[in-house]
Amino acid sequence: MSTILRRAAGLLSAVGLMALATTGALAQNKVVIGVSIPAATHGWTGGVVYHAQQAEKEIEAAFPHIDVVVKTSPSATAQVSALEDLTAGQNLDALVILPFTSEELTGPVEQVKAGGTFIAVVDRGLTDPTIQDLYVAGDNIAVGANTAKWLTEKLGNQGKVVVLRGIPTVIDDERIQGFSDVIAETDIEILDIQYANWNQDQAFTLMQDYLAKYPHIDAVWANDDDMLLGVLEAVKESGRTEIKYALGGNGMKEVIEMVKAEDPVTPISTPYPPSMIKAAIYMTAAQFNGQAPMRGNFKLDAPLITPENADQFYFPDSPF
Amino acid sequence: MSTILRRAAGLLSAVGLMALATTGALAQNKVVIGVSIPAATHGWTGGVVYHAQQAEKEIEAAFPHIDVVVKTSPSATAQVSALEDLTAGQNLDALVILPFTSEELTGPVEQVKAGGTFIAVVDRGLTDPTIQDLYVAGDNIAVGANTAKWLTEKLGNQGKVVVLRGIPTVIDDERIQGFSDVIAETDIEILDIQYANWNQDQAFTLMQDYLAKYPHIDAVWANDDDMLLGVLEAVKESGRTEIKYALGGNGMKEVIEMVKAEDPVTPISTPYPPSMIKAAIYMTAAQFNGQAPMRGNFKLDAPLITPENADQFYFPDSPF
Repeated sequence: MSTILRRAAGLLSAVGLMALATTGALAQNKVVIGVSIPAATHGWTGGVVYHAQQAEKEIEAAFPHIDVVVKTSPSATAQVSALEDLTAGQNLDALVILPFTSEELTGPVEQVKAGGTFIAVVDRGLTDPTIQDLYVAGDNIAVGANTAKWLTEKLGNQGKVVVLRGIPTVIDDERIQGFSDVIAETDIEILDIQYANWNQDQAFTLMQDYLAKYPHIDAVWANDDDMLLGVLEAVKESGRTEIKYALGGNGMKEVIEMVKAEDPVTPISTPYPPSMIKAAIYMTAAQFNGQAPMRGNFKLDAPLITPENADQFYFPDSPF
Repeated sequence: MSTILRRAAGLLSAVGLMALATTGALAQNKVVIGVSIPAATHGWTGGVVYHAQQAEKEIEAAFPHIDVVVKTSPSATAQVSALEDLTAGQNLDALVILPFTSEELTGPVEQVKAGGTFIAVVDRGLTDPTIQDLYVAGDNIAVGANTAKWLTEKLGNQGKVVVLRGIPTVIDDERIQGFSDVIAETDIEILDIQYANWNQDQAFTLMQDYLAKYPHIDAVWANDDDMLLGVLEAVKESGRTEIKYALGGNGMKEVIEMVKAEDPVTPISTPYPPSMIKAAIYMTAAQFNGQAPMRGNFKLDAPLITPENADQFYFPDSPF
């Protein structure tokens, strides 16, 4: 929430040209950008909350006439109520929303739009995309494909790998498809591929099974950094040393730290960054600060995170 | 170009907390965003120059540690030299470029990227897209398709229309394809479709031909607002009154003014906005101010510009 009082107090102690200029801006009507996101129920959404709150601070500092209001909700039902709160009694110029579910939020967001609000949707698209002025999403196919390309080169186009799947969803399907399509063009053999539900403990157990079942494994792709932590623990306990690479995906802070440290087994990650909420908030602010055209579809790449560029993907204060 | 001296002078007359805070920012190393664009050789590029210069002012005001440097070039060769100037003697953190031609600029931009510079490309993609960290482009198929959908509804799914093409390019092909594919599903007849090279005078002459050839025309689609002005002049001189709609595309200032005035013959336009350069500059600034993830592809929609929303697309001080 904007700290108008704190700013006003600051102004009282500042004189000269800058103070006059800023007072002028404060006198205008504020542009209000509402941000509706899931509460920090697990690592990735914890990152979303962190980055939304950072964006609020940064945007309000940069554009004094823009007020960013962040609401977190623990469920789809709660998120519908949050939309009602955001629009009650104020003119909401823009809504940036990461919907809990597409099905339950499409109708309520459509109602907000009917009031003339600019709608930016992040990650999970609405069932009627025409409601979205701006749609920001990651590229799960690229997450799998870019990892597979790197692995193919490092393994010299051959070897034996095991793969862990997440929760059965479109996101998981796309990651696996991107990975499998690249591997199919190589001499690499996928020994096994099972679900571990993006869960660290289940990934630990599944990796123990893989280790018992396969005497030689060249590399593991865990599809997600939470699962990667479970995999690494199982490998460590097993004492097995032939596994050259164990890779995840998402750009979790702990894994970025391994990349920065040039860890030999996990020297890369691929981002599906919770900071995409920040991209949407900045783009929405640009629409209102400078009439920059921001209606459209922004699809984020999943570039390899390497020791050289890891700093750009590293947020030491973020929970994820 | 940054006006460090002017700012420093302003600071001398400002005391208190804000002055201290800003002095701190000035002491940091500046992030430099170079912007390379064609010179204002015609209406649309005139708009590009205007919006790049506006973005420079707005970004430098919002983010004191970011310096935006805009260079305009009258030719592809000159643009290659401009890239050398931008990278000579300074660490260029980012380059935002609208290339004259894809062929001539791809190699030089690749060289800039080799120095670690973030590359944002606008409108005309490079021949090797992997050089582009961010690509921002309009949607020419939507320009044609959205115009055709509106026209179909207004004409009650029937009638006779004439169409003017631009310069034979992918851009023109896509606009015509978007329009034709929608019209093919209706009972509307396209009487004729000829090139007028996005030129107002040639459009005037071609429309005179159409008027002489066809005794009844329900609507004209000029594909571009420059050509639309020529069409409107020819219709006016002819005294013909059966033409219900004459539509263009791009969102030229003079045409937005017609839309705002609820002109009965030209009540809409569709944007292919030169301000897309501004979108790319804001997004690049967000990458560096807040580590917001801005690598990817941003495809702008071409929503209908109507009397209700025309203000959002209107820049009274822009030449376009």
